[in-house]
Amino acid sequence: MPAPCNCKHVDKVSQSTSLAALSPELEKEFANPLHPANLICELCRLFYDNNWVTGTGGGISIRDVEGPNPNLVYIAPSGVQKERIQPWEMFLVELPDEKLLRTPNDIPDELTKKYKYKPSACTPLFMSCYKMRDAGACIHTHSQNAVMITLLFENQSQFEISHIEQIKALPKLVYNKESSKVEKVASLEYYDTLTIPIIENTPHEEDLTDSLQEAIKNFPGASAVLVRRHGIYVWGETVWKAKIYNEAIDYLLELAIKMYQAGIPLVKKVQDTIEQSEICCNKLQDTIEQSEIVL
Amino acid sequence: MPAPCNCKHVDKVSQSTSLAALSPELEKEFANPLHPANLICELCRLFYDNNWVTGTGGGISIRDVEGPNPNLVYIAPSGVQKERIQPWEMFLVELPDEKLLRTPNDIPDELTKKYKYKPSACTPLFMSCYKMRDAGACIHTHSQNAVMITLLFENQSQFEISHIEQIKALPKLVYNKESSKVEKVASLEYYDTLTIPIIENTPHEEDLTDSLQEAIKNFPGASAVLVRRHGIYVWGETVWKAKIYNEAIDYLLELAIKMYQAGIPLVKKVQDTIEQSEICCNKLQDTIEQSEIVL
Amino acid sequence: MPAPCNCKHVDKVSQSTSLAALSPELEKEFANPLHPANLICELCRLFYDNNWVTGTGGGISIRDVEGPNPNLVYIAPSGVQKERIQPWEMFLVELPDEKLLRTPNDIPDELTKKYKYKPSACTPLFMSCYKMRDAGACIHTHSQNAVMITLLFENQSQFEISHIEQIKALPKLVYNKESSKVEKVASLEYYDTLTIPIIENTPHEEDLTDSLQEAIKNFPGASAVLVRRHGIYVWGETVWKAKIYNEAIDYLLELAIKMYQAGIPLVKKVQDTIEQSEICCNKLQDTIEQSEIVL
Amino acid sequence: MPAPCNCKHVDKVSQSTSLAALSPELEKEFANPLHPANLICELCRLFYDNNWVTGTGGGISIRDVEGPNPNLVYIAPSGVQKERIQPWEMFLVELPDEKLLRTPNDIPDELTKKYKYKPSACTPLFMSCYKMRDAGACIHTHSQNAVMITLLFENQSQFEISHIEQIKALPKLVYNKESSKVEKVASLEYYDTLTIPIIENTPHEEDLTDSLQEAIKNFPGASAVLVRRHGIYVWGETVWKAKIYNEAIDYLLELAIKMYQAGIPLVKKVQDTIEQSEICCNKLQDTIEQSEIVL
Repeated sequence: MPAPCNCKHVDKVSQSTSLAALSPELEKEFANPLHPANLICELCRLFYDNNWVTGTGGGISIRDVEGPNPNLVYIAPSGVQKERIQPWEMFLVELPDEKLLRTPNDIPDELTKKYKYKPSACTPLFMSCYKMRDAGACIHTHSQNAVMITLLFENQSQFEISHIEQIKALPKLVYNKESSKVEKVASLEYYDTLTIPIIENTPHEEDLTDSLQEAIKNFPGASAVLVRRHGIYVWGETVWKAKIYNEAIDYLLELAIKMYQAGIPLVKKVQDTIEQSEICCNKLQDTIEQSEIVL
Repeated sequence: MPAPCNCKHVDKVSQSTSLAALSPELEKEFANPLHPANLICELCRLFYDNNWVTGTGGGISIRDVEGPNPNLVYIAPSGVQKERIQPWEMFLVELPDEKLLRTPNDIPDELTKKYKYKPSACTPLFMSCYKMRDAGACIHTHSQNAVMITLLFENQSQFEISHIEQIKALPKLVYNKESSKVEKVASLEYYDTLTIPIIENTPHEEDLTDSLQEAIKNFPGASAVLVRRHGIYVWGETVWKAKIYNEAIDYLLELAIKMYQAGIPLVKKVQDTIEQSEICCNKLQDTIEQSEIVL
Repeated sequence: MPAPCNCKHVDKVSQSTSLAALSPELEKEFANPLHPANLICELCRLFYDNNWVTGTGGGISIRDVEGPNPNLVYIAPSGVQKERIQPWEMFLVELPDEKLLRTPNDIPDELTKKYKYKPSACTPLFMSCYKMRDAGACIHTHSQNAVMITLLFENQSQFEISHIEQIKALPKLVYNKESSKVEKVASLEYYDTLTIPIIENTPHEEDLTDSLQEAIKNFPGASAVLVRRHGIYVWGETVWKAKIYNEAIDYLLELAIKMYQAGIPLVKKVQDTIEQSEICCNKLQDTIEQSEIVL
Repeated sequence: MPAPCNCKHVDKVSQSTSLAALSPELEKEFANPLHPANLICELCRLFYDNNWVTGTGGGISIRDVEGPNPNLVYIAPSGVQKERIQPWEMFLVELPDEKLLRTPNDIPDELTKKYKYKPSACTPLFMSCYKMRDAGACIHTHSQNAVMITLLFENQSQFEISHIEQIKALPKLVYNKESSKVEKVASLEYYDTLTIPIIENTPHEEDLTDSLQEAIKNFPGASAVLVRRHGIYVWGETVWKAKIYNEAIDYLLELAIKMYQAGIPLVKKVQDTIEQSEICCNKLQDTIEQSEIVL
């Protein structure tokens, strides 16, 4: 998982070169390395390095929560090599009615080479995260750790793990009846159980929408959904939170596979331990009492 | 799998330096980063990072399908370190008669240091892909995932996997009787079975040609051939398609090894599942009917 | 484990750009790439690449042992992405009373974007290493090798390995009664047993302090402490020694897991071997004597 | 295994900066990126990325076979971080009497910071390869694949593998009685068995010399020696050949571990296969004959 290249100076040079064919407005917009369209490019390169989006797999979308219009949503296109994506290749829609504001098909042919871009098939899934959870970004990968967990636990509809320090990187979410919203109240504690629902894959990605929405509803504490034999969707309040959650979850999935293979339970049954200790204590007590009797 | 370096500015500088010893025509030709000879260099570096072509293993060839003469084929030479290859080190032949137009042995000694280049032993295999499938590029790697699959299934002459999302990155190919050609009609579906033939290795790479051609003929749906105890050949309509297919296949081979080790079947027998459901339904029906009788 | 980027020229350029918003004093201070604050950034990027500090996990602290005031301690903040950390984001405290000299919350908003930094929860643990062992730096990672070892040996309170060459990278430490200090007298020998205590995790990181201190006291030969289901703390005389020890230990933990899975004992019982040889010798002797009797 | 950075332009800049403190002669010498001292730096960075020389482990030496004096041998120093090594940190000796011509301890304090360099403990081992095999370079790594193979085959004194394509990257060496030298006559064939002797580790690296020399003598076909619980020594005619052999061997060791774990024999017994086919043929012949009788 290589850290981002620190060579900002060079990036700017190469960027300005490739962006010169754009309109002055877009050229200026994309000059900001923290623009959502640039962050999508940067993160896709990172995800490619992690083997999460090779072969055009996976996708990402960022809502411009820190920009002047937080209803703007940038979405990487379908079927392109994620590690080579450019800022002008994004689809731009506006919430809540998902009005299409800009497509890469409007960009000069000089840049697109007449390629006809299609919106990501993940679009309705990303939108579900924005609408149902006020997410600031949503990441979809084909991580092999995600796929393997859904195969190892083929008959289960959720993944659970507890008592691993990395769990603390994930948010504790609760449903607030007053606001009718799921809200982050803290981070998960070390002894908490992280639960991620697993939904069944469908032949067409957009057909996952219903079951993803159902999972989001049924698991208010979840900030991710696993898709069997397919991958994972992870979202967060901002693009950086989504990135952090995705990293922490993949770390936990990787560890869980190793634990499973070594026969170590993923959820530590503390209650059992306590009960056993109590039984032990009782037995010890009995023994002591019996000894006393004997004495 | 590290993403390509974004430092386009720097690459140009270093390139112009090393190319100055070439003829002005070649210098100009190789100044284009999308020239097939440059793409071979870029992809070889990527493949090296993936442990696919270490120790001078593997090879790649690109047909200039988007250039003025789509019959030109660039081929990386034999026995050199793939990650250090330079654009002027390629052999250039013209289809259909494979006329040799240029060899790195014509390049000034200043650059070649009098090294005598040999064409890749893969050349007849690459040519088979161009002639039998109209391929735009052909990639050959010594991927350990490819080698391991042929060892784990030592008695099988094909590799099969189904019901994994990543399968959708690969093309659905059908034989068109009218054109007598294998044509891409769509992408594979999630529930389709990806089939890759496995041929036996031979002491000399060129001797693989007959069995590779036979496999290409017998498996019209395949865009790759595995070579037992050796590696894999993957081709595509363009260099980028070949790269994407190769990445997606290696992802699936890696996953297949993990599934095999965990005892998970690579091909999901859906029919069985349906029949079992029907049996269950019938039994349930019987039970209900019997209950009704009892009632 | 990617080597540090060699592009010093470029790093300087990008650095001077991002530091321009600082006070001239800080800008000058951070211009030195070997400044502890810069080394923290460089090492965090390296650790991220190794999957040791993803998802904001882990931490690092450097004492300025080669600077004018060796009591100054730089500490990376809590909860930030370690691979994106900047030199002005460190907390600076002075030993022995841990007086807070500087916090990133004093930095201009232009750089911090009003983010409110919190000191690392590891702070009291880092301080224990400085005070009890005169450490020059302390590294804390969530390395999966560390976590897995504590899970595979769930009932053990220490990890041991012997007879692996890499052990020689670690220091031989002994308690000096006169100075009442643990001192490095040499490197471990190939046949020495490396011992690392394992302490139990606690819900709050700072609550590890007591058991970490106890482990440091009880294991005078240790330069690291494993935390069950959590990760590892490693320290050294200087930042580079801490880095080397951490690398060598992680190499040994990774190897130990492979050995465990292959059923190979981690500690080679040489004594047993010698005793067995002696028994064999004795038996042989007996046999010879008996033969002689017979003769 | 990341490919070398292509940014030659930037490397030159950073290099000239750090070399300015040297004498003009050395500064000029090290300006050549193909100088043995620079190649040692480049390869150490690559080996570090492969986890072969982390924690100061491993070493490398290059004989200047293409320079004006092919008796000059450059050796990386002991105990330093291999990925941060600089060209002026090498020891330089002249064969055949190993006369010490230059040490990094002669370099201005400004660069060495008064660090006292020690020659690598591998020096007598490197010298053995130069003297007994006319090697042009010798690489020593702590590769975990090398260590694991010596552990999995703890009772064997050699490692063998056959019928894997990558074997062809290694040289076929034979002892020439006339010249009394081991000479490369070709590359190994696919069906050849690659054999690498395994020697037992000793507490002090220099004490390996005798058994390494004995192994080199007893295994004229070998271009590497495995050291149990320690790592591997690999040599070649030039630095690039040594690098290629080392890469190919590590690939084969990695694959061999996977094959071992899957229960696949490392050496394919072709004779058995032929005999079995013959038995089958005979049985078939019998059956046919019997059928004919019946008919």
